[in-house]
Amino acid sequence: MSLPDRVGGEAHTAGGGATAARPQLVGVHRIDCRSPGDLSGVQALIDAGTLVPADIVAVMGKTEGNGCVNDHTREYASMAWSHLLAPHLGCTPSQAAQRVALVMSGGTEGVLSPHFTVFTRRWLEDGVPLRHNAPRLVIGTAHTRDFAPHEMGRMAQIEATSKAVREAMLQAGIQRVQDVHFVQVKCPLLTSTKVQQALSRDIEPVTRDTYESMGYSRGASALGVALALEEVPASAVSDAAVLRDWSLYSGRASASAGIELDHNVVIVLGEAPGAASPYRIAHTVMRDAVDAASVRTLLRECFAIDPDREDDNDTALSGRLVNLLAKAEASPDGLVRGQRHTMLNDSDINATRHARAVVGGVLASIAGHTALYVSGGAEHQGPAGGGPVAAILHVEDAV
Amino acid sequence: MSLPDRVGGEAHTAGGGATAARPQLVGVHRIDCRSPGDLSGVQALIDAGTLVPADIVAVMGKTEGNGCVNDHTREYASMAWSHLLAPHLGCTPSQAAQRVALVMSGGTEGVLSPHFTVFTRRWLEDGVPLRHNAPRLVIGTAHTRDFAPHEMGRMAQIEATSKAVREAMLQAGIQRVQDVHFVQVKCPLLTSTKVQQALSRDIEPVTRDTYESMGYSRGASALGVALALEEVPASAVSDAAVLRDWSLYSGRASASAGIELDHNVVIVLGEAPGAASPYRIAHTVMRDAVDAASVRTLLRECFAIDPDREDDNDTALSGRLVNLLAKAEASPDGLVRGQRHTMLNDSDINATRHARAVVGGVLASIAGHTALYVSGGAEHQGPAGGGPVAAILHVEDAV
Amino acid sequence: MSLPDRVGGEAHTAGGGATAARPQLVGVHRIDCRSPGDLSGVQALIDAGTLVPADIVAVMGKTEGNGCVNDHTREYASMAWSHLLAPHLGCTPSQAAQRVALVMSGGTEGVLSPHFTVFTRRWLEDGVPLRHNAPRLVIGTAHTRDFAPHEMGRMAQIEATSKAVREAMLQAGIQRVQDVHFVQVKCPLLTSTKVQQALSRDIEPVTRDTYESMGYSRGASALGVALALEEVPASAVSDAAVLRDWSLYSGRASASAGIELDHNVVIVLGEAPGAASPYRIAHTVMRDAVDAASVRTLLRECFAIDPDREDDNDTALSGRLVNLLAKAEASPDGLVRGQRHTMLNDSDINATRHARAVVGGVLASIAGHTALYVSGGAEHQGPAGGGPVAAILHVEDAV
Amino acid sequence: MSLPDRVGGEAHTAGGGATAARPQLVGVHRIDCRSPGDLSGVQALIDAGTLVPADIVAVMGKTEGNGCVNDHTREYASMAWSHLLAPHLGCTPSQAAQRVALVMSGGTEGVLSPHFTVFTRRWLEDGVPLRHNAPRLVIGTAHTRDFAPHEMGRMAQIEATSKAVREAMLQAGIQRVQDVHFVQVKCPLLTSTKVQQALSRDIEPVTRDTYESMGYSRGASALGVALALEEVPASAVSDAAVLRDWSLYSGRASASAGIELDHNVVIVLGEAPGAASPYRIAHTVMRDAVDAASVRTLLRECFAIDPDREDDNDTALSGRLVNLLAKAEASPDGLVRGQRHTMLNDSDINATRHARAVVGGVLASIAGHTALYVSGGAEHQGPAGGGPVAAILHVEDAV
Repeated sequence: MSLPDRVGGEAHTAGGGATAARPQLVGVHRIDCRSPGDLSGVQALIDAGTLVPADIVAVMGKTEGNGCVNDHTREYASMAWSHLLAPHLGCTPSQAAQRVALVMSGGTEGVLSPHFTVFTRRWLEDGVPLRHNAPRLVIGTAHTRDFAPHEMGRMAQIEATSKAVREAMLQAGIQRVQDVHFVQVKCPLLTSTKVQQALSRDIEPVTRDTYESMGYSRGASALGVALALEEVPASAVSDAAVLRDWSLYSGRASASAGIELDHNVVIVLGEAPGAASPYRIAHTVMRDAVDAASVRTLLRECFAIDPDREDDNDTALSGRLVNLLAKAEASPDGLVRGQRHTMLNDSDINATRHARAVVGGVLASIAGHTALYVSGGAEHQGPAGGGPVAAILHVEDAV
Repeated sequence: MSLPDRVGGEAHTAGGGATAARPQLVGVHRIDCRSPGDLSGVQALIDAGTLVPADIVAVMGKTEGNGCVNDHTREYASMAWSHLLAPHLGCTPSQAAQRVALVMSGGTEGVLSPHFTVFTRRWLEDGVPLRHNAPRLVIGTAHTRDFAPHEMGRMAQIEATSKAVREAMLQAGIQRVQDVHFVQVKCPLLTSTKVQQALSRDIEPVTRDTYESMGYSRGASALGVALALEEVPASAVSDAAVLRDWSLYSGRASASAGIELDHNVVIVLGEAPGAASPYRIAHTVMRDAVDAASVRTLLRECFAIDPDREDDNDTALSGRLVNLLAKAEASPDGLVRGQRHTMLNDSDINATRHARAVVGGVLASIAGHTALYVSGGAEHQGPAGGGPVAAILHVEDAV
Repeated sequence: MSLPDRVGGEAHTAGGGATAARPQLVGVHRIDCRSPGDLSGVQALIDAGTLVPADIVAVMGKTEGNGCVNDHTREYASMAWSHLLAPHLGCTPSQAAQRVALVMSGGTEGVLSPHFTVFTRRWLEDGVPLRHNAPRLVIGTAHTRDFAPHEMGRMAQIEATSKAVREAMLQAGIQRVQDVHFVQVKCPLLTSTKVQQALSRDIEPVTRDTYESMGYSRGASALGVALALEEVPASAVSDAAVLRDWSLYSGRASASAGIELDHNVVIVLGEAPGAASPYRIAHTVMRDAVDAASVRTLLRECFAIDPDREDDNDTALSGRLVNLLAKAEASPDGLVRGQRHTMLNDSDINATRHARAVVGGVLASIAGHTALYVSGGAEHQGPAGGGPVAAILHVEDAV
Repeated sequence: MSLPDRVGGEAHTAGGGATAARPQLVGVHRIDCRSPGDLSGVQALIDAGTLVPADIVAVMGKTEGNGCVNDHTREYASMAWSHLLAPHLGCTPSQAAQRVALVMSGGTEGVLSPHFTVFTRRWLEDGVPLRHNAPRLVIGTAHTRDFAPHEMGRMAQIEATSKAVREAMLQAGIQRVQDVHFVQVKCPLLTSTKVQQALSRDIEPVTRDTYESMGYSRGASALGVALALEEVPASAVSDAAVLRDWSLYSGRASASAGIELDHNVVIVLGEAPGAASPYRIAHTVMRDAVDAASVRTLLRECFAIDPDREDDNDTALSGRLVNLLAKAEASPDGLVRGQRHTMLNDSDINATRHARAVVGGVLASIAGHTALYVSGGAEHQGPAGGGPVAAILHVEDAV
């Protein structure tokens, strides 16, 4: 397998010495948990030798908090993971949280089942003979610098995210933007402390409302992804466009805001020829929260799976379909299929919670299982009211 | 058209002088609203002559409250309806609420759109020539006596409900239990005042928890329906079975608890040959909250509609499919498709709210519209974790 | 009794023909309710002749909703009142809602007890001999024009409110701003429909967040009151000051936002010599949500009541103290007495709900009863984190 | 100092070799935190030598979750504490959680500020000369065995708790029940998993509702304390009395239910002569949620503090008053001071959350600071609707 010189050379230096030019073997484990801090299922896989902690590059968790400002289940799960990983990585817990991309998305409303999706990566030796040269799952990660409170939701965050996406692509060995199928971003939010911090320096933050800041941070992050993947022209992106111009969006971005960090973490998932992973990934865009048709088409056309036939035999599909990664949001114009919804006027339940419950239900009705990664708040992630969905399928045994 | 003597004779006296032996013409209007008290859409239909207020026998509303104990949107909508109907019926608002079955189900979580489904009924003259003798939509209503606080959730409520269902069937002109496709019950709940009332008389109510009382009231009502429709043997039903023996259920009952009444109101929807209504009704049972397959099968097999084909042309299906009437609940064993859900442990959002959001999303993904009647709390209504679904289809123009 | 020419002449034409120059007799009834639509207590007073419906000028209700965007208990109570008043006023229900200032404040968190405070006013004949010429309770009402969505939270709303306050003072016969002790404003909010309305005309509303719009509307209304009462200089007030410059506030404004109206309604409560009312009113400002000391001082210094002594005999104080009218808010800097609070970061319970629970508890611990008018969201109403409190005391039998 | 033979002999063997007969020096630190997992304030005290980790016997935390079933902030804080303590105690994190009584109470509604109250204890040498022999703060801890799901809320839990209280008193060196001023119990709750566990063994748990189980567990624990402190006769206590007979209660019990344990942990706080601690403790009982008078009397009569005078100088009182430890609940009869409250009918906010907000506000209005330990759910803890309050005062420098 050979990569063009343009990328290969740089890639050799990316990712802590590993090189994208060598074939990568990505593993994906979906592991249930009984609480945000419960890693007994993870430990069991480690004990059995199925999961090698040192290989873990990213964890995408769904934890059972409210997914909003005061959702401490995200940091709780991150603390548990950091303490689990530290001895295996030979570092402190906080260093472990720096080395592995821990993305915890809060909110398992409705049927959604709390779980962790663990991505491992091992670089095979150059010259290892591969079964085939078909495209297979690859992964790359990167992170931005810390943001000042006033930078969040604005160009500073957009541009830094875009840069990080390109770095992660390079690390993953993905050369063409169309081979990127999902970009998960973990981004910060404004707490009332941070708002005060900005105000004390006489700088108006993008919003003073903590819950609202989550949307701005996600929106700017998604525009950063769209910029990197050439889904929107650079000229269209500005401070003013964030949460304003819904025609700008990425069909592959997924951003989650959390209280536990000050910078963006980026995970790029895509396909590359020459990868040794036994998984494929593909994506589509739901045009609204109840657009089951697009997802059914994705499974049929990309993976030759007929969800209807599978209805009789759920295990088949739910066994092979490792996970669906999706974004959900309440349509900002207050309508779904032309009819009024009440999610944006509900002062008891935040709109993101409603949206996750809906999309989780719709996807579970197709996938046949409920441990799905459905994350709320799809600003500039898919069209207004809709969102990207990626499917990871187990296709064969590894090399 | 002739009805067997057994029923015909009695039926002539049911329903305020109207007679089930004469052909009935049932109309169904699904009308959007902008708030629980907004009847401007209703008024517009009245003004246009499309809806004759005096013909209204039942209103099934979805209002945008929390659907739980302190959901005052139900009584608010009922007050608005009573004031609208009173002058047309020549009675006081509170008498209007007695004559017309006003069933307001709170909770439009997720994509669900607040609306009213209005059922009218007109008795045609005997001997009016009908186009055909195929089964068409019929409706009957009845109500029980008021319940003392301690009777709720127990045999007294079960038996009274069963009796009311038989009365409503008679009024509707339905002779065979298999021709009943949906039985909507509105039932009371225990407020803390009522709990104290019982305790002050030294009678322990079925529960002291007001939210929990809603489940008991719905469960007992559903068992009453199951008894009337011969879905469970009389010998199996007892105080102890309520919210305990989940093997006992009705596949056609839908019960909603509300703070605004002390008795049960029953609406029976079914089919009878000789009815002049341009609608058909059929039902199925979702085995769990994400069982889209059963509903897709119902549409395909009963109505020859392929939801997938309709995906390209939503208007077609959503135009003909007047409404889906469904019950939703969080699976009481804490699992959906074998995986843990968190709805029953969520102290911020009650489980019924989660469940409505999920089932509303799943059904909207099939029906292509969101003004669906999805009601929460399916105790003894369908199997544990699942629930009944009825579909009302417009099939032709009236006689 | 004579009034200065300056005001007297105009006043004779204010208030629908009534004249402030004639002595006014204001009555205050605090009436419990069992639900937002329950006016049985009101009806009982009417039946007993204690309350004359035609005399009612204002109703300030506390209803048991969430007090936020989708709190329909406010419109529900208003609908009930409109239907009750209409036949007595010889008009339609919607005209009744125009003639009487119906201010429903949602949210009875904690110990707060739902109730209505009903203000009646009767103009006595000129020359009726009064017992004394000491200042007694007077009331005046007024309302602004409807606001376009983009005007809310901005100067248009501030200025219109200020003008309405001056009109209401005139009607009440209050000449000096220091004799105004409480100004209740009912103001509109932005729903997602209204937000879309503005955007479709390419005008950015003050916020797109419906819950946040309530704060802007209350804040602008309070600045309008402050302007009218000369508490802030006109030069300091601008669009930019709203929810920004917390040094600007009224010590007597109380604003509640509701979904049911498009304009501001203003009720001015104060004292004037020559009034025949058996009530007095005074006010103070709580400097934070737990500032019991200021209220204890108010009762001691203005009314010679020692709350501590009253502890042994609650009936005495709670009998004479008709109501406390207060505003509550979560301190916007995230601190109370220098320590962090979590109200602004709570995505399950809105901050206004927390604040009402706290202030309601603190005031009930002083007043000895719980049917208190505590309204949430004190933007520019008292200092940041604090709020105005007025006390209405029954002092003697009427003329 | 000599202790009566009856207790002294046994005491020498209690508490891991330490002996109650030797003078104990109890330290109390109230430490703020920025999140449930933030122990930076604790670490700072350790680094400064002010707090010796090995001396810590108990931590009573207020964490910022919902305080109900799915409040994971409690386990999150416990995990953080376990990891902090482990290296200092020379054991694993889970062993640390066994050795130190970690009681995390969720819910800082209203003005309450998240914090930890850390109790240290050092046993002085026999014969160390003490400044005086006046009663000073002592502490003792104990725990019960694990409970099976069906034992919770029933006699098994009551009796085991009573036994643990006597053990903790012995350890603390308290001989007379009247010298016990506060007993904190941490007790388990029923999750839906545990409910299923019981049902699968055909044993009906005390309730199937997870939120309701918290009340049963707290109630049974409190009756256990009442039994140990001879506040109720053994003959009056039975399964049937739990959450039924409100005349039975402890004036000093405080129970918090949490998802993170299966047994009860007991902390006894009281006074004993001969203790070397620079703190005093006293208690009273609030008769309802707004009973400020009782607490003001406590401060005046036991500690000669006049809260009113202190109003001018908050630092004085808030500096000396280390903490108030209190229980809060919504009056189960639906009334406060004879007027209806809505806490028990609120399906959006659980009643315990309302109650904490109220009592927290009332107490902060007296204490002048907001980092107070107010815990929700006062079943059998104080009279119905009221609850115990203990005050810890710093009185002098240590020995």
